[in-house]
Amino acid sequence: MLGGESKERAIHSSKLLYLLLITSISLNLHSSSVLLLLLPFGSTPEPGWTNPASTEAEAVAAIRCSGHGRAYIDGVHIGGVPVCECNTCYGGSDCSEISPDCPADADRYAGVVCDVSGIRGVMLIRQIIEGDTPLHMTRLSLTVKIRGDPLFLEPYWMREAAGSAVVVAGWHRMSYRMKDNAAAISPELVKQIRRLHSAVGNAITDGRFILFGTGSTHLLNAAVHALSPDDPSSPPAKVLASVPYYPVYEMGTTFFNDRENRWGGTTSTWVNKSDSSTAGEFIEFVTSPNNPDGRLKRPVLNVSSVITDHAYFWPHFTEIPAPGDEDLMVFTLSKLSGHAGSRFGWALVKDKKVYDKMNNYIQLSLFSVSRDTQLRALKLIKVIVEGSKVGGKDIFEFGYSTMNDRWRRLNDVVSKSNRFSLQSLSPQFCTYFQTIRDPSPAYAWLKCEREEDKDCKAALKAEGIISRGGATYNADGRYTRLSLIKTQDDFEQLLQHMVALVSKESGTQVI
Amino acid sequence: MLGGESKERAIHSSKLLYLLLITSISLNLHSSSVLLLLLPFGSTPEPGWTNPASTEAEAVAAIRCSGHGRAYIDGVHIGGVPVCECNTCYGGSDCSEISPDCPADADRYAGVVCDVSGIRGVMLIRQIIEGDTPLHMTRLSLTVKIRGDPLFLEPYWMREAAGSAVVVAGWHRMSYRMKDNAAAISPELVKQIRRLHSAVGNAITDGRFILFGTGSTHLLNAAVHALSPDDPSSPPAKVLASVPYYPVYEMGTTFFNDRENRWGGTTSTWVNKSDSSTAGEFIEFVTSPNNPDGRLKRPVLNVSSVITDHAYFWPHFTEIPAPGDEDLMVFTLSKLSGHAGSRFGWALVKDKKVYDKMNNYIQLSLFSVSRDTQLRALKLIKVIVEGSKVGGKDIFEFGYSTMNDRWRRLNDVVSKSNRFSLQSLSPQFCTYFQTIRDPSPAYAWLKCEREEDKDCKAALKAEGIISRGGATYNADGRYTRLSLIKTQDDFEQLLQHMVALVSKESGTQVI
Repeated sequence: MLGGESKERAIHSSKLLYLLLITSISLNLHSSSVLLLLLPFGSTPEPGWTNPASTEAEAVAAIRCSGHGRAYIDGVHIGGVPVCECNTCYGGSDCSEISPDCPADADRYAGVVCDVSGIRGVMLIRQIIEGDTPLHMTRLSLTVKIRGDPLFLEPYWMREAAGSAVVVAGWHRMSYRMKDNAAAISPELVKQIRRLHSAVGNAITDGRFILFGTGSTHLLNAAVHALSPDDPSSPPAKVLASVPYYPVYEMGTTFFNDRENRWGGTTSTWVNKSDSSTAGEFIEFVTSPNNPDGRLKRPVLNVSSVITDHAYFWPHFTEIPAPGDEDLMVFTLSKLSGHAGSRFGWALVKDKKVYDKMNNYIQLSLFSVSRDTQLRALKLIKVIVEGSKVGGKDIFEFGYSTMNDRWRRLNDVVSKSNRFSLQSLSPQFCTYFQTIRDPSPAYAWLKCEREEDKDCKAALKAEGIISRGGATYNADGRYTRLSLIKTQDDFEQLLQHMVALVSKESGTQVI
Repeated sequence: MLGGESKERAIHSSKLLYLLLITSISLNLHSSSVLLLLLPFGSTPEPGWTNPASTEAEAVAAIRCSGHGRAYIDGVHIGGVPVCECNTCYGGSDCSEISPDCPADADRYAGVVCDVSGIRGVMLIRQIIEGDTPLHMTRLSLTVKIRGDPLFLEPYWMREAAGSAVVVAGWHRMSYRMKDNAAAISPELVKQIRRLHSAVGNAITDGRFILFGTGSTHLLNAAVHALSPDDPSSPPAKVLASVPYYPVYEMGTTFFNDRENRWGGTTSTWVNKSDSSTAGEFIEFVTSPNNPDGRLKRPVLNVSSVITDHAYFWPHFTEIPAPGDEDLMVFTLSKLSGHAGSRFGWALVKDKKVYDKMNNYIQLSLFSVSRDTQLRALKLIKVIVEGSKVGGKDIFEFGYSTMNDRWRRLNDVVSKSNRFSLQSLSPQFCTYFQTIRDPSPAYAWLKCEREEDKDCKAALKAEGIISRGGATYNADGRYTRLSLIKTQDDFEQLLQHMVALVSKESGTQVI
């Protein structure tokens, strides 16, 4: 670490450099404005019109945040300079100060505050935040903790800076529609998505319709709507999932409270009753690999309409045994490239009628997915496709080696403990890497083995580790989820805390 | 127009230039890749990392489309070059060929195909596409024509190319959240929106919460949800609007079919009944200025919760008599800057509880608005704020003069007709321009005056003018809407057709 004075000097010179560059932007802008005023409207801009944007982006990228943070062009500016936004537990103007008593947050979330209004009658809703205990209620306010931020891929994109940047011109795609395409979906992006699945071998796209959503959540809501019965005299479809399951399926179905469907609970309740002709229709959510436990899953009921959530079905997190071939598959950029903030997902849909109904839902809620997002997704997916299986450029190689390293290191610690255990995952052949690969799940599904640790989340919290308890996934409180997909800083803090915890148990230093 | 051979040569040299520039990108990328591989992960990219993106953007901007079209970096590529996407009625590889029998489309839309499922019982739904006649039905498939594309501002952004471009780095805002901001809303963008309203004087933002949506449609749906009664034993709120009204209010309320509200029809039905204590709650949509007729509006019922749709409340389209001060105001980038494709809207909300409920709705449907969209909105709004009242840089000056010119020219033609008339709008004092300004509405609300022209839309269609009939707005079929906010090409075609139509009526050339 730098000494006080030289550190201050470094920060000062970094700010100075930034201000110098930004002044040059203003001068550029001024001289080009004079030129531009002479141009008739509608003619092509003068060469060099991208210079101010480039200078600005490079100046911000050059701001030093000690490798524990990042400055952004749309960040808060102080004294004309964007501030460093530091990783968890780091602070100071250049993110070089580590907070000594900071808990390891293996559960960072985006804070969905959810009032479950629109519920008919008394429903059993599990209260997700406080206590994780089931509550009977007709109406409640609660906060759902949603998915962890997949920042483990950020270093990949820093390295691929030149290929992955994109300039958005001021006049780029102002229209709702693409040429000859009322649905406002970029045909080039559709093409790249087909190439991507073919390169990775994780989904069959032939004979499938492709639909875009503002994140996969939007597509999941659209899918529930689309698979519900058309006939208003039919009983509402029951929407189900198998324990442990991602809580947003239940939240979405309950919150939007479409009269054609309702949350029906877990598949285990219906496994022997679903054949009965009086049971009505079922919609089963299958997450494969599963969030939280990383296992590849198949539907439990064989009479269901199935929504396959393949968010994590990428070589970062799992072997690819064969391409996905399900009727309705949902993917998200968030877990492929790590761009959770872009809110881009897509669905591969076999049935034209289901596709049409999903499309209607998307269009009536927000017309279409942002053009800016589609442009960025196109650029990122192109980089991924072109780097696939190219040594040193392959995002899956990078993602897998990062995730596998984290899993291996966490496993090493936990294996020395009698108090905790991890889900058991075994090496499997992967068609993408053409070799047997060790596990690399997105999340650790930790179990507290001691009789008294009925609330595993609370047991960890007492030791400074923030996790997401089993009850969130409708599972036993002896389980809790640790996110492994966050920044390297987050992971190292988690590991340090786990080492301390396990060392305490055995009375010796484990690593 | 160019002769055949020289035209071909021009196209050929434009393509050659593009391919040369793109080859230089590949070389840049190759040499920088070699450099980048030597960099440790996570370090700052080498200066020059934005060059390939800049070169690509400038090369695409330089492709010649004869002023009647545009090439985009995410457009379909043929022979490695993005193709020109031509304006309506133009074609050929450089958009120089005009189609002789092309109708004037004053109603371009983005094709929302909508199955109204989720309806309880028999409902009266107006069929919007075919015939514009009311139909009784329980369930139907129909296509809603949504708002016209506001491409009239494209030349402004071509001119402001240098200031409005933005470079999105590959690692930009991958996280869901902003720093210390779980709601994932850019604080800088909030600040710019407050500055914007203060510069324009069209809304009071003090003491208001600001909420982002993926377009304003999403916020309108969220607002209906938020203003509906909380108590499940209350009767559903009735959602109303005054004729003529934007049809998406009715479509959205019907389609999403929340049990706490239902479409209640037009305000005129309730004007004398709404005071009755048995009438239940009302939610009134007020569009000001109104789509389609451009008039400033106020609520009709004084017991209602009001959603004020201020999409068109900008100096392009209307005088600003005073800042908007309503409880729940919705704005959209689409009609401010013309970026309909970006899908960005915002709401200004007085009441914390209403704000919280809207926020829940947005978050459970799609977590947050795309970071890429927020970044672009920030850049565009900054350009607008900084150019406001600066001669030659002011988007409102540009927007107003374009719209006023179109209105004036159309009025000149229609005033010579006995068959057609336009809505009457008078010059008014505008606090933004600090002067009395002539009208400049977004749409012409044309009336067919002849007894036999009961279907004004059909009468225009027979003469090659595509418009949107009165029934779409729940109004008399003697009215039809002509969009004036599209490209200059679209407007010129509309005007030519109107000139021909009015000339036929009088038997002489009117212009």
